[in-house]
Amino acid sequence: MNQKEQILKKIATDSEVIGIVGLGYVGLPLAVNFAEAGVHVIGFDKSKEKVDKINKGENYIGDIRDAVLREVVDKVNLRATTDFTKMKECDALIICVPTPLDKFRKPDMSYIESACIDIGRNMSKGTFISLESTTYPTTTENFMLPIIERESGMKHGDDFWLAYSPERVDPGNKNFHTRNTPKVMGALSEDGLEIGEALYKKAIDNIHKVSSPRVAEMVKILENTYRLINISLINELALLSGKMDINIWEVIEAAKTKPFGFQAFYPGPGIGGHCIPLDPFYLEHIAKQYDFDLSMIHTAGHINMRMPHYMYIKIATALNSQKKAVNGSKILFLGVAYKPNIDDERESPALEIMDITAHKGGEIYYNDPYIPHVKTNEGREYDSVELDKETLEGADCVVLTTNHKDFDVDFIKKHSKLIVDLRNMIDKKSEKVFKL
Amino acid sequence: MNQKEQILKKIATDSEVIGIVGLGYVGLPLAVNFAEAGVHVIGFDKSKEKVDKINKGENYIGDIRDAVLREVVDKVNLRATTDFTKMKECDALIICVPTPLDKFRKPDMSYIESACIDIGRNMSKGTFISLESTTYPTTTENFMLPIIERESGMKHGDDFWLAYSPERVDPGNKNFHTRNTPKVMGALSEDGLEIGEALYKKAIDNIHKVSSPRVAEMVKILENTYRLINISLINELALLSGKMDINIWEVIEAAKTKPFGFQAFYPGPGIGGHCIPLDPFYLEHIAKQYDFDLSMIHTAGHINMRMPHYMYIKIATALNSQKKAVNGSKILFLGVAYKPNIDDERESPALEIMDITAHKGGEIYYNDPYIPHVKTNEGREYDSVELDKETLEGADCVVLTTNHKDFDVDFIKKHSKLIVDLRNMIDKKSEKVFKL
Repeated sequence: MNQKEQILKKIATDSEVIGIVGLGYVGLPLAVNFAEAGVHVIGFDKSKEKVDKINKGENYIGDIRDAVLREVVDKVNLRATTDFTKMKECDALIICVPTPLDKFRKPDMSYIESACIDIGRNMSKGTFISLESTTYPTTTENFMLPIIERESGMKHGDDFWLAYSPERVDPGNKNFHTRNTPKVMGALSEDGLEIGEALYKKAIDNIHKVSSPRVAEMVKILENTYRLINISLINELALLSGKMDINIWEVIEAAKTKPFGFQAFYPGPGIGGHCIPLDPFYLEHIAKQYDFDLSMIHTAGHINMRMPHYMYIKIATALNSQKKAVNGSKILFLGVAYKPNIDDERESPALEIMDITAHKGGEIYYNDPYIPHVKTNEGREYDSVELDKETLEGADCVVLTTNHKDFDVDFIKKHSKLIVDLRNMIDKKSEKVFKL
Repeated sequence: MNQKEQILKKIATDSEVIGIVGLGYVGLPLAVNFAEAGVHVIGFDKSKEKVDKINKGENYIGDIRDAVLREVVDKVNLRATTDFTKMKECDALIICVPTPLDKFRKPDMSYIESACIDIGRNMSKGTFISLESTTYPTTTENFMLPIIERESGMKHGDDFWLAYSPERVDPGNKNFHTRNTPKVMGALSEDGLEIGEALYKKAIDNIHKVSSPRVAEMVKILENTYRLINISLINELALLSGKMDINIWEVIEAAKTKPFGFQAFYPGPGIGGHCIPLDPFYLEHIAKQYDFDLSMIHTAGHINMRMPHYMYIKIATALNSQKKAVNGSKILFLGVAYKPNIDDERESPALEIMDITAHKGGEIYYNDPYIPHVKTNEGREYDSVELDKETLEGADCVVLTTNHKDFDVDFIKKHSKLIVDLRNMIDKKSEKVFKL
């Protein structure tokens, strides 16, 4: 039996071991899904804290039910470790590490590089490897493959298989989660594609195979670039609409009545999260290597980067209408999460607006029912304050930055002196309400 | 009974007369819909040819069934005229005139202006006026109203009512036509909105009312700007993908498997038709008055304008692979319509690519089953040639510019020496096929 037949047989008999590298909001749900399907899963992470939590059955991801995590840990279908030498016990290794941007908005490939080095040094022959992190097209073939071959001394196709299959997790989405979101996969060889499909089918209902890893890499970037440019467009139109005395939210609601050829996007104080603000710039980066300027992404990125500054100006304008300056005013931000009803403040525009406002002398505080403590990009730290009558009445300006369902809009409106509504949370016009 | 009560009573008793100004692809279907609903309709157009055709029951619009037009003309529910003094017989006047761009890509408001002058000089008191043409926000209030009041000597609110309700006609759409496509409407006064709704309800199933004409104006521009920027994005990504050896069509098919947050757009040789290439620049134009640069539209417009040039380069590259120059080569274009299965070549990118290629010495000819004769932007005129074996074999290069369903792709592939496929019509890879 050759390597390929061996791994396919293990998969067919549920005797394979899958290693998930990186136990964040992508890796942990995937690990749990495989474990639930009866597969033996080892979770790898450099954070001892995360590993200990998982092994104690303590969940730290919003999209996973606590009971399910406890169950798969109790059954020993899932265990976590910081010991990367245990990769040699795995038949498949799925990489779910971060791909952030550095301070100059260039791809930070260090997590993928580190995972590839760990895998190359520790894996056994006959391992299937898949990358799930969003990255620029050609990463799997031109960046990962040489590192893994160099570190392992093994040869792709004979000793291991490499594939790319992007995660499509949408945190907080009630309808679509890991299992029922179709998964795109491209592999370096037909064998790899076959093995990958057999494997992923246990945790994911539908696998959509494409002809190469670079096609799959482009798919994920296209999906998020689509969102970036449409949000940027509507943000730009929102700013113009403000000047033209047009309610952009009313415009969008009316445009949505078109039964074909339109998808609604909503303006906001900027784009947050770990995908949309970052992914398109991975593509912009690699495009340079092909002497190509991606002008749509560039323009969208520019609008998006400027939004927090425009939002600061909205706040200053609102205060000015009451003859107040930002400098010395008490400004309460409601919501620091980057989208409603989740506990994630990564890349949240609220943090940047808070920094700008604090920098100009505003006295800043915030409430977020999901996030008790934050640290801004510039290192300012705040604890969430009580959201009560006194807090609202004491603020010179209340800024609605995240539309959490928990916020009692009528209560907020009643007790605030001045409101800057960046999320269309307040319907009625009022002199004390300024809208994006 | 005041003016408002009078017109509402006429509408309620089906005794009103509606004048439709401009009998093109928007005005004529609307006129037919009203006439079908039993309303007495007068169609106004400056073209004696169109007017004569209609009065003879001869249809010239693809989306209207010939029998329906004949029926409403026979019943004398619809008659057409070039005599604009007959506007005085109308209780309502609906303007469906073109809003093109001039040679410097600035709004050409002359058709709206002319319609407003005709209306102002001819209408009776108590007329409801609605504009359907796409235009920049504030047109109804700031451009039309002063002209109509000046020419008529009447006063809005007392003597007439003015509204804006954009057409959403999608030529060739089999599912959505004038009646079942919801209609957005904003009016200058509450009375106007009430009258407009009562009137339009006879021809349109759903009326979505908004707070002002400028909101309705922005709605239409948003819908088409959304399409412009998404097509421009995918065109830009298609050009990059070509360089990166990525099949963009495969990428789009895979991205479409994402069950939320994605809408597919397809690349092509440029954007044609009478809406998407034009409408966003109406907004760009008015934005300048508010000291505002619409960078997304600007960038998208730039990509779109350059597409025919890139397509010319594709043709030159394909010919070069067979050691041929464009200069002196026979180049056959298949399809000059701007989209499949319609007979409309307005703003079609095919015409521009033909001009560029002819300019470089290519010997140009074309076939389009829907369009027997064309005149290019630079004034070259061509008749559609027979699409047979000899024609295909005689061409040095066959360029697929419109994906009409009538084209027999296998036949074309079999008999062509070289194909440049700009519409993803040919699946299989072959050395003689070059794809966008």
